Amino acid sequence: MIDLNADLGEGFGRWQLTDDDALLTSVTSANIACGFHAGDPVIMRRVCEHAAAAGVRIGAQVSYRDLAGFGRRSMDVPPADLAAEVAYQIGALEIFARAAGAAVGYVKPHGALYNRCVRDPGQAAAVVEGVRLAGTPLPVLGLPGSELHAAAAASGLPAINEAFADRGYRPDGTLVPRSEPGALLDDAERVVARCLAIARGEEVSAVDGEPLRLPARSLCLHGDTPGAAGLARRIRAELDGAGITVRAFA
Amino acid sequence: MIDLNADLGEGFGRWQLTDDDALLTSVTSANIACGFHAGDPVIMRRVCEHAAAAGVRIGAQVSYRDLAGFGRRSMDVPPADLAAEVAYQIGALEIFARAAGAAVGYVKPHGALYNRCVRDPGQAAAVVEGVRLAGTPLPVLGLPGSELHAAAAASGLPAINEAFADRGYRPDGTLVPRSEPGALLDDAERVVARCLAIARGEEVSAVDGEPLRLPARSLCLHGDTPGAAGLARRIRAELDGAGITVRAFA
Amino acid sequence: MIDLNADLGEGFGRWQLTDDDALLTSVTSANIACGFHAGDPVIMRRVCEHAAAAGVRIGAQVSYRDLAGFGRRSMDVPPADLAAEVAYQIGALEIFARAAGAAVGYVKPHGALYNRCVRDPGQAAAVVEGVRLAGTPLPVLGLPGSELHAAAAASGLPAINEAFADRGYRPDGTLVPRSEPGALLDDAERVVARCLAIARGEEVSAVDGEPLRLPARSLCLHGDTPGAAGLARRIRAELDGAGITVRAFA
Amino acid sequence: MIDLNADLGEGFGRWQLTDDDALLTSVTSANIACGFHAGDPVIMRRVCEHAAAAGVRIGAQVSYRDLAGFGRRSMDVPPADLAAEVAYQIGALEIFARAAGAAVGYVKPHGALYNRCVRDPGQAAAVVEGVRLAGTPLPVLGLPGSELHAAAAASGLPAINEAFADRGYRPDGTLVPRSEPGALLDDAERVVARCLAIARGEEVSAVDGEPLRLPARSLCLHGDTPGAAGLARRIRAELDGAGITVRAFA
Repeated sequence: MIDLNADLGEGFGRWQLTDDDALLTSVTSANIACGFHAGDPVIMRRVCEHAAAAGVRIGAQVSYRDLAGFGRRSMDVPPADLAAEVAYQIGALEIFARAAGAAVGYVKPHGALYNRCVRDPGQAAAVVEGVRLAGTPLPVLGLPGSELHAAAAASGLPAINEAFADRGYRPDGTLVPRSEPGALLDDAERVVARCLAIARGEEVSAVDGEPLRLPARSLCLHGDTPGAAGLARRIRAELDGAGITVRAFA
Repeated sequence: MIDLNADLGEGFGRWQLTDDDALLTSVTSANIACGFHAGDPVIMRRVCEHAAAAGVRIGAQVSYRDLAGFGRRSMDVPPADLAAEVAYQIGALEIFARAAGAAVGYVKPHGALYNRCVRDPGQAAAVVEGVRLAGTPLPVLGLPGSELHAAAAASGLPAINEAFADRGYRPDGTLVPRSEPGALLDDAERVVARCLAIARGEEVSAVDGEPLRLPARSLCLHGDTPGAAGLARRIRAELDGAGITVRAFA
Repeated sequence: MIDLNADLGEGFGRWQLTDDDALLTSVTSANIACGFHAGDPVIMRRVCEHAAAAGVRIGAQVSYRDLAGFGRRSMDVPPADLAAEVAYQIGALEIFARAAGAAVGYVKPHGALYNRCVRDPGQAAAVVEGVRLAGTPLPVLGLPGSELHAAAAASGLPAINEAFADRGYRPDGTLVPRSEPGALLDDAERVVARCLAIARGEEVSAVDGEPLRLPARSLCLHGDTPGAAGLARRIRAELDGAGITVRAFA
Repeated sequence: MIDLNADLGEGFGRWQLTDDDALLTSVTSANIACGFHAGDPVIMRRVCEHAAAAGVRIGAQVSYRDLAGFGRRSMDVPPADLAAEVAYQIGALEIFARAAGAAVGYVKPHGALYNRCVRDPGQAAAVVEGVRLAGTPLPVLGLPGSELHAAAAASGLPAINEAFADRGYRPDGTLVPRSEPGALLDDAERVVARCLAIARGEEVSAVDGEPLRLPARSLCLHGDTPGAAGLARRIRAELDGAGITVRAFA
């Protein structure tokens, strides 16, 4: 059994980025931008309605406040400020999820905040504090072994492991940085094969060819690249065809 | 019986404007800025906590998205966009209210949106639609006879009348525009006397001296002027001393 | 002789909208977004460099401060504020134009500000005051008979008439509003034919079929629609082929 | 001979922070916020006019794009983006300086960008590249020995050393971090005495009592604290009274 998640609603005002409706036919969890790196109230409302109609779980993709940098620039936000900013974003999304007859089901940090929460316990704890302000123990979605998951565990929040369908991995299970060769798998066949392997709990190949096991209850698909919706559809079909249950993590 | 409301949390980041803690000792309803004209997550969290601790009702003061203009510049926002923007602000505040053990108890438009909703049925209906997305029939606070109240009534939301402690009124019950003489009462004695009269249901004087009755379940005090907190304290004391019950509208 | 202008640089951060490099092969004047409705410093720098390299004149496309609404929402900005905001945008663009070995050659309001300046003398005068702060008498680009042009004339700034290649016109020479039938010409043949007619000073057809003369020294092409770059290339080729000199207004 | 600089124009919209007119009677160089951490076009225009009228030199105080954090949160902005952002801010200020009959005379990074440029050669080089886009070799104002000054020297820009009137110094000439004891001198007498010593080229005391020489052609006074304008006036009077020439660095 595996969950498929992707970033949705990453437009802002006049600008669109992700093909939300196409992706919603493939994924089971939608990481919805909440206005700090992308996403505006109109988009958030629409994506929540469509996700709810499609039976896709709604997640809050929280970010540093950095519209100009799409949340990809690491920022030294004081923990108390970051916690409040995370909560603000969750609350804003929640009203649209609820109006659509659903609820915010989990939280995933975006971009620089995601990367920061892998190794920085202070930022990770602040994100978890922000999540806790929501009042229900929402799961957080992140990398196995990350500080985010450590902070979640310490606070009693479920921590869900994810793996990336199209990112290169080092033998130690960390991601190959985007600036290095092998950071991205651009061959669709290999991406599909890897997704199947991860879903089955089988080993995959690290960037150096070494076998590697990626414990994951969710697979992250990229939604903002050309052909993203088509690849997502194919991955979903292959998983379905292989008899693997694709559904949102419990 | 009367409610006292004031705008709180009108700082942003490094900037402060309102003496929130002082005002919270006097008012019974706090109109809290939600980030579109003022207010940031840190301020919102703190003011919600202090309001809840003081037993003051929390209201969402929603605004056009106009930080540079403090929400005082009228904007032709398409109704569907405005409804979503209003909902976003309410949702963001709600998480902080809930974390403080309270809830958002009402909604009041700010600045240009407030004025626009007096006469513009399209903008008023959009605000009401935004409020309805919250899922509970939150009261809206505004001027008697306003389009906002008409739209609220049409949607089944309670509409609460308010009067302004220190604004001049025309004989027809509308406010003297700020650009005209008599727009503001700057004599504290007159402001206090008027508050007592309104609370007792007695007549007050319009700008031309004519007697005028202002039906109001809430009195709006200004919080962003020098001496605001002191005047608020005195109004509260005079009302208490006159045996008038000061408490949030039901 | 005719000038061709189009809006360029209308992305922001991660988001792109206009195919700037393709359009720069066709137009002679580039209306460059300055950060208030679209455009960020990186985009502005790049578009200025490419425009200068292509010999295309650089214009400042100034807007209300409304990134979320792409500058399409009319705002009641006090004239003194608006003048300063216009100047700010021109100054910001100027440094990139200068660094590219060029200069800001004209100013054109965007979106709601453009429409507002057709009939609102106060907003038009504020835009012109903002332009005058630049210190050189920059031409303003707008509709014949607009308040913008009246204000420019009164201040000694050149006013350049433009016509729209693909917008429907009423018999009185005003644009058919976007909400009405006939607002947009979507037949490429008709658009091309109209461009040739305008460039030759011949009559075109209003929306009701009446003949209409559009005095224009510049033709505005849209850059943010699918196929925009292809249509611009074709219009340029047809004008060139017809022996019409296409170059920036003097 | 010494220059006195302070941060001015640090309001935004409805919010004010610095007593600009009072400070302009004391300082000889005004670091004017350019809209990224504080400062809006109206404020920038007014402060430029008043600074020019008072004969005070105008400097561009450039910052990370972080209004919510007042530019105090370090951000990993890619160098090409940072250079363009710095140029944008300088250009925007330049139009107001020029309209006031003056010019931008220098550049000083603000807050987190200032601190980052002490030790980070990449960010420092990006700032210097941004300054160079202005086309004239504007001096940069910063700490002796900083990466900012190294980058300026490498690019042929003048680097001006400054010292802080009220900050504690370690024996090695670096500032005591704000989180440690002795970070701020709060005794006005000591601040004044130190200003006189620095202006005369005499030694001052480091936080541990060790003598320390601070080579500085400019003294930075804080403008955003209560009593800032009064202290600035007194420092200026003491320097004048001691026969020290107070004027903008050449």
